[in-house]
Amino acid sequence: MDNREISQAVIGRLPRYFRFLGELKDEGIERISSQELSDIMKVTASQIRQDFNNFGGFGQQGYGYKVEYLYEEIGKILGLDKTHNLIIIGAGNLGQALANYMNFERRGFLFKGIFDNNPDLYGKKIRNMEVRPMEEMDAFVRENEIDIAVLTIPKTSAVPVAERLVRNGIRGIWNFAHVDLNVPREVQVENVHLSDSVMKLAYNINRFEKGERS
Amino acid sequence: MDNREISQAVIGRLPRYFRFLGELKDEGIERISSQELSDIMKVTASQIRQDFNNFGGFGQQGYGYKVEYLYEEIGKILGLDKTHNLIIIGAGNLGQALANYMNFERRGFLFKGIFDNNPDLYGKKIRNMEVRPMEEMDAFVRENEIDIAVLTIPKTSAVPVAERLVRNGIRGIWNFAHVDLNVPREVQVENVHLSDSVMKLAYNINRFEKGERS
Repeated sequence: MDNREISQAVIGRLPRYFRFLGELKDEGIERISSQELSDIMKVTASQIRQDFNNFGGFGQQGYGYKVEYLYEEIGKILGLDKTHNLIIIGAGNLGQALANYMNFERRGFLFKGIFDNNPDLYGKKIRNMEVRPMEEMDAFVRENEIDIAVLTIPKTSAVPVAERLVRNGIRGIWNFAHVDLNVPREVQVENVHLSDSVMKLAYNINRFEKGERS
Repeated sequence: MDNREISQAVIGRLPRYFRFLGELKDEGIERISSQELSDIMKVTASQIRQDFNNFGGFGQQGYGYKVEYLYEEIGKILGLDKTHNLIIIGAGNLGQALANYMNFERRGFLFKGIFDNNPDLYGKKIRNMEVRPMEEMDAFVRENEIDIAVLTIPKTSAVPVAERLVRNGIRGIWNFAHVDLNVPREVQVENVHLSDSVMKLAYNINRFEKGERS
């Protein structure tokens, strides 16, 4: 299967399919039509069929999708049958929140270390990890086959830290710093820009109210 | 200006324009061409012109954009000249991380209260707020003109809490719970699904490596 040409929009929707299918599976539902899936997910049935066609279909006409099969196939496409080794850079509240979120582990995202440049935090236990000084990061990445680094540090430090991670062979950066990172194309970046997200919410609130008044 | 028809994709890009323009402004840059803006933002110049045309242009042909003017105009479109009153539901690490993030305040997002259902946390001071019991939430929303609620609670509690917020007149929900909320159309929801985001990262890492090997 060659899925190199699939758009980021489709890929962005896959985890959501995976989540809804997981819930259906947990409820003991075995089959679902694209129309029913469309109703609960609030996406058109044709969008669903189009998205799934990128991966060869999955469904049988007039028969619906087998929930568990579809759930597992999408999981495989997402690479959830593999495990990933992660480190967190920044042991503040956000870094700690992510370290403690058990669901990531269930999906194969294994936190191996957490780093900070504040000496007061060195050795502090967060879940099953002790906070390490930033000086140890480079060797740790190489020696522990770390493929994903999570950046929960201010934007000024995010840029040089990302460069160090790239030099040490990181494959993906999950970036919570409020800056866009310049990395070589072999390193994947997924941004979570929280300020952008709340601004978009504010815009939609204001727009709705303007619309109501006019 | 009627901007009710502007797509969520354009709106989603506005905060990023705002962020880059803010950085240019801080660097003392007064004018910028759409080509230069395109280079630093890694969006095509035609995309930039198209996006800005939704709001009546802003630019002069062959002259470029005035950075400060554009920054302020986009800020106004985003509603950043207004303030918003927020509460946080869930005083765990993520709720605390958001409460302590000063940048939101600078943009007019004012945290007024934080709630939890764990009695051990009642009265605990987080920044300038004391954690309150969930029973006080409904009255607090009405009495303090709260327009945005931030949900950092598990998905099972997120659904009934969202219903209570809607009944009490909330206008926007910033949802970090791992579930899609069903709310009336007058309530705006912005989701931050962290698991979806890290799965997308994993997919892109795997896809890149498959591509390299084939």
